[in-house]
Amino acid sequence: VGTKESVARPADAMDEERSVIIAGFGRFGNIVGRLLRANGVRPTVLDNDSDRVDVLRKLGLEVFYGDATRLDLLHAAGAGEAHLMVVALESSEQNLELVETARKHFPQLKLLVRADDRFDAYRLLDEDIEHVYRETLDTALTAGVDALCHLGFRRFQATRSANKFRCHDEAALRELAEMRHDRKQYMNHARERIRFLEETLQAEHEDTGERDAGWDVESLRKEYGDE
Amino acid sequence: VGTKESVARPADAMDEERSVIIAGFGRFGNIVGRLLRANGVRPTVLDNDSDRVDVLRKLGLEVFYGDATRLDLLHAAGAGEAHLMVVALESSEQNLELVETARKHFPQLKLLVRADDRFDAYRLLDEDIEHVYRETLDTALTAGVDALCHLGFRRFQATRSANKFRCHDEAALRELAEMRHDRKQYMNHARERIRFLEETLQAEHEDTGERDAGWDVESLRKEYGDE
Repeated sequence: VGTKESVARPADAMDEERSVIIAGFGRFGNIVGRLLRANGVRPTVLDNDSDRVDVLRKLGLEVFYGDATRLDLLHAAGAGEAHLMVVALESSEQNLELVETARKHFPQLKLLVRADDRFDAYRLLDEDIEHVYRETLDTALTAGVDALCHLGFRRFQATRSANKFRCHDEAALRELAEMRHDRKQYMNHARERIRFLEETLQAEHEDTGERDAGWDVESLRKEYGDE
Repeated sequence: VGTKESVARPADAMDEERSVIIAGFGRFGNIVGRLLRANGVRPTVLDNDSDRVDVLRKLGLEVFYGDATRLDLLHAAGAGEAHLMVVALESSEQNLELVETARKHFPQLKLLVRADDRFDAYRLLDEDIEHVYRETLDTALTAGVDALCHLGFRRFQATRSANKFRCHDEAALRELAEMRHDRKQYMNHARERIRFLEETLQAEHEDTGERDAGWDVESLRKEYGDE
């Protein structure tokens, strides 16, 4: 497993360490930050929940206490020199405020922004934010893949289907963001998109000619009967 | 792309269609349900937000209006014969209530349960729920993978790292659930687990001997300077 010194890290790690800011270290930012750290990247973390900051520090994580929407704090955190900021504050309003500040004062920052849901994502797309993460999307797809597997689908097939679903849905999100102020047009397009997605994915199953051994009710009964 | 008739579906589709119930069709259940439909599975969907049910029906989705924690409604939805239920109600309290009812009256149902966060997951693990989904976990990992890629990591490497992170974190979740009522033991173990995970993942980078071309500050500056 090797020694600490030989861990693959950039030569000028100090510069690198200052290159990522994580604003908000709740259930979302926390996971992003820990994944980065586990890969040798040490982000600058800001959080304004003092109890949480206290607990996180006791867990050995470096977190600065403060309101990430404040310009002076962003300067102090190195936002002027950083490459990337993960925007994961508690509320979508705070996220939007931070996005606007970052856009104005730190135009070099690439922004990865947490969104509550589809409608929150629309507002971020209005601000020309490219990297928007509807916070429950991927987990719901994971649950969907597991459900399909329990029903007898092969995991590979189910995962591929979820990846395609995600691509289609992200494309639909961008189209629907544009037309959402015309309710009738919006509903028509959303309905069409849902139908299109279903037909496309089902047609793909067909093309691959794949049928799963477990995919019949009798074997399902057996499987579940054993539990 | 073929005709509707040739789509791969189980021979006794009617039985199959009744085999999945989705309780709650908000941002989480909605995605699960649409992924299932796109794979030819038609779940029975219950939701007790009448406005949402109205909109979803206009979008062409079949949703029953009603409170999924009510035993009579669960019977009517076919919970007695179903194989699988996705539990994705609005609040974690409602989810827990439904889990208890399902456990008591429909012991054959496999339950896939949405959790708000780590602490909500602990409570579900207390109820011996095997399939618990912390609702923002996978999306946060997706954002983390994207962040690593922007920093010059290869996507394959970053994705593999995220998968390992997830496995470790799920294992840690189960261990920590057991010891959470002893705060000192909990904090010590959590701290150890975080450090162990970081060291393990970094050691793996080392073992593979992988270094990324873009993974130095100079090339990062070039990349971001171009935008």
